[in-house]
Amino acid sequence: MPVITSVRSYDVRFPTSLDLDGSDAVNVDPDYSAAYAVLEADNGERGYGLVFTAGRGNEIVAKAIESYGKRLIGLELDDLVANLGDAARRLVHDSQLRWLGPEKGVSHMAAGAVINTLWDVRAKREGKPLWRLLVEMSPEELVSTIDFTHITNALTPEEALELLRAGEPGKAARVAELEAHGHPAYTTTPGWLGYSDEKLVRLSREAVEAGYDMIKLKVGTRLEDDIKRMRLARETVGPDVRISIDANQRWEVAEAIDWTNALAEFDPFWVEEPTSTDDILGHAEIRRGVTPIKVATGEAVMNRIIFKQLLQAGAIDVLQLDSTRVAGVNENIAILLLARKFGVPVCPHAGGVGLCELVQHYSFFDYASLTGDIGWKRVEFVDHLHEHFVEPARVVNGNYVAPKLPGTGAEMLEASRDRWVFPDGAGWGELRAQGKI
Amino acid sequence: MPVITSVRSYDVRFPTSLDLDGSDAVNVDPDYSAAYAVLEADNGERGYGLVFTAGRGNEIVAKAIESYGKRLIGLELDDLVANLGDAARRLVHDSQLRWLGPEKGVSHMAAGAVINTLWDVRAKREGKPLWRLLVEMSPEELVSTIDFTHITNALTPEEALELLRAGEPGKAARVAELEAHGHPAYTTTPGWLGYSDEKLVRLSREAVEAGYDMIKLKVGTRLEDDIKRMRLARETVGPDVRISIDANQRWEVAEAIDWTNALAEFDPFWVEEPTSTDDILGHAEIRRGVTPIKVATGEAVMNRIIFKQLLQAGAIDVLQLDSTRVAGVNENIAILLLARKFGVPVCPHAGGVGLCELVQHYSFFDYASLTGDIGWKRVEFVDHLHEHFVEPARVVNGNYVAPKLPGTGAEMLEASRDRWVFPDGAGWGELRAQGKI
Repeated sequence: MPVITSVRSYDVRFPTSLDLDGSDAVNVDPDYSAAYAVLEADNGERGYGLVFTAGRGNEIVAKAIESYGKRLIGLELDDLVANLGDAARRLVHDSQLRWLGPEKGVSHMAAGAVINTLWDVRAKREGKPLWRLLVEMSPEELVSTIDFTHITNALTPEEALELLRAGEPGKAARVAELEAHGHPAYTTTPGWLGYSDEKLVRLSREAVEAGYDMIKLKVGTRLEDDIKRMRLARETVGPDVRISIDANQRWEVAEAIDWTNALAEFDPFWVEEPTSTDDILGHAEIRRGVTPIKVATGEAVMNRIIFKQLLQAGAIDVLQLDSTRVAGVNENIAILLLARKFGVPVCPHAGGVGLCELVQHYSFFDYASLTGDIGWKRVEFVDHLHEHFVEPARVVNGNYVAPKLPGTGAEMLEASRDRWVFPDGAGWGELRAQGKI
Repeated sequence: MPVITSVRSYDVRFPTSLDLDGSDAVNVDPDYSAAYAVLEADNGERGYGLVFTAGRGNEIVAKAIESYGKRLIGLELDDLVANLGDAARRLVHDSQLRWLGPEKGVSHMAAGAVINTLWDVRAKREGKPLWRLLVEMSPEELVSTIDFTHITNALTPEEALELLRAGEPGKAARVAELEAHGHPAYTTTPGWLGYSDEKLVRLSREAVEAGYDMIKLKVGTRLEDDIKRMRLARETVGPDVRISIDANQRWEVAEAIDWTNALAEFDPFWVEEPTSTDDILGHAEIRRGVTPIKVATGEAVMNRIIFKQLLQAGAIDVLQLDSTRVAGVNENIAILLLARKFGVPVCPHAGGVGLCELVQHYSFFDYASLTGDIGWKRVEFVDHLHEHFVEPARVVNGNYVAPKLPGTGAEMLEASRDRWVFPDGAGWGELRAQGKI
């Protein structure tokens, strides 16, 4: 029986701030980074997990991964991957570590990465990409992986089981459809705040030519700039391509309503992160104030308990699950089930580094096993940094191509990992030598 | 002009789990710990701050303190302590670090400790304990220290200024009263779950004899045990001493209502942390279901935005500010002002290590500058680990004695710090040698 011998963590950072890729009203200069977890057993089996961060502070998450990883050393790998619910609870509810959250911020993200190393082992053992593993797992086992603590007033284990069973008919056909055609994406590539007008127009046109039917623009720094940029984008893509806007929590509640409505003439599809994602009541008020523009949030929502309330309060039209903020595959599934229960579409947050590779699995699963309906649901895509992964996310004709390799999608190329380890990787050394940092 | 040269962090832990001090339904075996921050400038000036944790994971917060501390190295100390609002925003809203929260969990706690080292310098320069510094600071300066981001729909800077100005009349007399008589406390000492019935009865009796008019019992593991313990406690202290109960987030929403009402015959004063402190809507429902028993929460509330909503939703009767979860003195003051605006009494969370030393300042300030009314407000007190501080918190006849030494109260004795640094301090070495750990 293989025993876990190590959970190593790596502080991997990419110098994206040099080109202002990923710049928005709040995240003005991100260096897209991954706190990367590698679990290893004494038989050589490995599992991988990661947390996306914006640069500084990645070392804190890496440290937290070590701390959570220590809780697994010496345990039998077979037990953990056969009981992924127990494994997750062991980490998330550790009687001392939980004080650091509970279930939020650095500690929760790190717990999620470590939990995901076990899912990665499980998927690799079964020779399946995560979404296929989830689709083919029995509803009973899937429900057993979920932590229903503090959400039973919105979703019980019995209800979860019913939702999964209701998704069984037609599943095989939907899987075949996903394998053949993939899942629709949208792109944020044209819309970063640091880009010039010319670049915005060019990238918007290219997005439409590449087959996307929705793009997203960052807003929230100066209203007159946003009006100008929205007008340019709308003129470029025409009336039929959706344009969503994203304020990255820049506004107060009343300001969010006014600013969004000031852009209404350009027909924004959704407004994303209009205010603090901790502000459930604020989102509900904003939603009432900007209808019919949809309200979206989730990339900074810390756990299922906040999502539960956003749904209970009727505060959102679009749930943007963030796969590395919450406690691993388990909590992502819980959130998908909550959204299904409340009938709110899930359009996962991606971009960053590794997020596209990870979140596609959830949307594939969501369609095949839960909703059976794509409608206007789109998975975010940004064409950055995919080359560092063993199986890079791929979008063709505006559709995510179904991942095929066994695992969760988190495994990076060792060469990339070692080159961009911060601060001592060769990539960083070269930038220093060139005087760029 | 003194320049900041270092912000060191220490992982200081005390082996409280050996005696089950501090055990409750969720925190079954805490080792009370402090991630301790020491800021130093090139003129030798020092400021101290800390984050309370439950043991494992303290090293993560210590690491985060280093990361935040680095943002201050090389800056002029005078600028920072003269502009404590700007100093706090520089850390809390750091464009890369904020992804780790934003404003929650490990990163937020660490930012708070570093911010507090600056308040400690300021208080020491003025030769005042923190509460006197706050009471004597102009309303304008105090308001300038507050970050109103995402709370202006509940409290504007103008309203904050009005509340502070309204507290000016009679302030000198209230300060004199606090200096002479202190501020009432309550004690959790009798109520830990790990204690025997005999110990519960003995400590409850001793609490009343020592002058307390409120005690608190941990509940939430087995209802029949809670009934037995509540009965014992009520028989011991009589009808006139308040007994509050604390479930440490153990319950689902419906369960919280049923369990609390099952204890109603013993007249509990408040029920604390009936469910997840992230669950604003859940707390509102519980409050409706358990009236007239009061609902209290706060020790795990991560920031002013959640507190704002708890107040907006009418979800709590008692706000239990936790001084080391939020971003330093600044955010504690913001929370006190929010509570004042909504007319909800603040009874700070203490116990742990260092919390009594810290929170007393907020209740003294709250009475002198904001509410002018103590009523049934009590500050939590647990008689643990005070001997490790330069100015130990002291309760006499059930009242916190006004702290007198300059500073925030966070400064530990160097001997204690070095003895209990984990894992290499002499205290831990001795426990290992004795086979106790």
